[in-house]
Amino acid sequence: MTFSPPALPSVDLAARLSGRARRMTASAIREILKVTQQPDVISFAGGLPAPELFPIEEVRRAADAALTKYGPAALQYSTTEGHLPLREWIAARAGITPAHVQIVTGSQQGLDLLGKILIDEGDVVLVEAPTYLGALQSFLPYGPRYVELPTDEHGIDTDALEAVLRAHPAKLLYAIPNFQNPTGRTLSLERRRRLLELTAQYGVLVVEDDPYGKLRFRGEELPSLYQLALELTGDPDRSHVIYSSSFSKTLVPGLRDAWVQAARPIIEKLVQAKQGADLHTPTLNQMIVAELVHDVLPRQIETVKKAYGERAQDMIARLREAFPPEVQFTTPEGGMFLWVTLPEGTDTTALLTRAVERKVAFVPGSPFYALGGGQNTMRLSYSSATPEQIRRGIHALGETIREALEATR
Amino acid sequence: MTFSPPALPSVDLAARLSGRARRMTASAIREILKVTQQPDVISFAGGLPAPELFPIEEVRRAADAALTKYGPAALQYSTTEGHLPLREWIAARAGITPAHVQIVTGSQQGLDLLGKILIDEGDVVLVEAPTYLGALQSFLPYGPRYVELPTDEHGIDTDALEAVLRAHPAKLLYAIPNFQNPTGRTLSLERRRRLLELTAQYGVLVVEDDPYGKLRFRGEELPSLYQLALELTGDPDRSHVIYSSSFSKTLVPGLRDAWVQAARPIIEKLVQAKQGADLHTPTLNQMIVAELVHDVLPRQIETVKKAYGERAQDMIARLREAFPPEVQFTTPEGGMFLWVTLPEGTDTTALLTRAVERKVAFVPGSPFYALGGGQNTMRLSYSSATPEQIRRGIHALGETIREALEATR
Repeated sequence: MTFSPPALPSVDLAARLSGRARRMTASAIREILKVTQQPDVISFAGGLPAPELFPIEEVRRAADAALTKYGPAALQYSTTEGHLPLREWIAARAGITPAHVQIVTGSQQGLDLLGKILIDEGDVVLVEAPTYLGALQSFLPYGPRYVELPTDEHGIDTDALEAVLRAHPAKLLYAIPNFQNPTGRTLSLERRRRLLELTAQYGVLVVEDDPYGKLRFRGEELPSLYQLALELTGDPDRSHVIYSSSFSKTLVPGLRDAWVQAARPIIEKLVQAKQGADLHTPTLNQMIVAELVHDVLPRQIETVKKAYGERAQDMIARLREAFPPEVQFTTPEGGMFLWVTLPEGTDTTALLTRAVERKVAFVPGSPFYALGGGQNTMRLSYSSATPEQIRRGIHALGETIREALEATR
Repeated sequence: MTFSPPALPSVDLAARLSGRARRMTASAIREILKVTQQPDVISFAGGLPAPELFPIEEVRRAADAALTKYGPAALQYSTTEGHLPLREWIAARAGITPAHVQIVTGSQQGLDLLGKILIDEGDVVLVEAPTYLGALQSFLPYGPRYVELPTDEHGIDTDALEAVLRAHPAKLLYAIPNFQNPTGRTLSLERRRRLLELTAQYGVLVVEDDPYGKLRFRGEELPSLYQLALELTGDPDRSHVIYSSSFSKTLVPGLRDAWVQAARPIIEKLVQAKQGADLHTPTLNQMIVAELVHDVLPRQIETVKKAYGERAQDMIARLREAFPPEVQFTTPEGGMFLWVTLPEGTDTTALLTRAVERKVAFVPGSPFYALGGGQNTMRLSYSSATPEQIRRGIHALGETIREALEATR
């Protein structure tokens, strides 16, 4: 006689998910990247920092030094706010105090926690059209109502912003003023000032996402919205701008070290939200970065800027040769991306299939629009491409586009 | 003439916080720990793993090996699901596949993400009375309605559970079956089976939190709820148990490496939630742990078990000597904590002030009750105490308690 355990009644797992979970979708880019990860495809789709520039030996020595300097404390639980020497370095550079700095596990976590402490179901969140897909995804579970802000070559159109602010009582405005992901565009100084005035006047918080700001390879550095607000108010506790940045693009992404700067009433809630979210960012990782900020980081920023500047210039030159004249593209002054606009009626999602047949990949632009649209746009990343890949990849992409445009004539 | 920039209108920051943020509070324990962190106070309050046992040199070598083996990939962005060799190791041990395993940034993140994908505003969440404060804090932003389950020396009272399930349509039950935080109690095998049957029958998901399961220093290992469900259904995709564990208590906490095992419909939503929450757990940290699981982890578990077993035994012997007979305490078979119950009417929060005057600290039990109560209880941690600290600390605590009990007579 064999023993047969009583079977458990079956629970319908999908039916137990929250409404929030049902709203979540897999990242469109992530799904696209899976298709384009065949080894012989030249991919301008990813947003990966150039791995050949990573300071591996410096990270190895910093890990070693942190373990020696701090001993078991480098591997123990630590404070939710983050490693004090790292917060002090960030604060000193920004002219604020460590009490205005919260360390987060990648700036993605900063966006998630900000969504959690700021967005109520139905709150209007103003976003650039297009904007960073990951921010849309972070905020989505908290039930925002997205309203898009028109943009041009100088970033958010502040005249249009004023009209939007009059029409919609908004909770916050999310912006990437420097070398925006996905367009590569930079918000002009004049518009920065106007955006600050308007948002303060209408009582709208600004979340300024600035992962690429230090990677300017052309033109003059502009003050961040956060810096401008600080100059105007003189008091970091009165700033309505919340600033987010990261070591992912300047140093390495895999350690997941980033930070948020904000007024204390915001930071205090961020700390509470982070306690529930992951207690604290890994201790050793913060200590590694703190070992690197003084000497390695400035050198690394120079190296990366130079490389990305050359790659951007190279890609732009190839685009001019290979693309039909009716195709437009941005010419970024920093960062990792440029943005291509094809004639109205072109569908870059359909184009991607053809491009992959010719062994080249990009990201269609549509997922970057909170409310849809942009079917005729695409994002190209030049950050981790070799000259040979740029030459062959842009040539193949040009051919794909020409073929598609001819077919629609 | 000096230029005076136009002042910005002031934005009322506190008024812009979400309802969710207003519900959040600072961890009571965290605030208490601040008071008790004077260097001459013997603290049984923290829940810190013993730092003198950390395998620092092994972590140093593993970091070095991972950087050599994987090169820049150790510092690059990586997949949201987590480092495959680590997921494979976890899956093989549990008799499941890597598709049933999600790596998270500390089990606190696992709890937060599970709250996010499962709990709708007003959903009934069943919790032990008392339970882990950090879980209450993780779930709180998602608006659960907590219902407490009575417990005794064998954990959750399953007869009472049946009555609760009949009275409340619940979404999930959160339980810590092994060496519970805060009580140190273990759920009996018979009750594990009954809990599984009842929850399956009523369609209630079980979140099984098991950070201490491998740290049994006395008695026989019991199968987890997850293992029992797997034996009964034979199919990891049909399990209504979601299992959470961590390398924080067995290896080191500061790397923040933990995981969730669950049916694929749950894991798929966890992946989406984690994309928005922090993209992925730090790459290098996962590789370090993957280097350590085969040889260092089993040795480390033996070392930690032995030390905690001795410390628990020592503390229990001192409690028997120093505490008045009307004070009860648990005698855990593993983990880091024991639970003290004083006569009704005693207030351990008031007692803490007196204890700190005598240079000893503990955590009052009340914050571990979702719905309040437990004013006459306290949690003691023996994991990082020396014999001398246990002798002097428990003696001082005994005196404080005697004095308080005499005052109320």
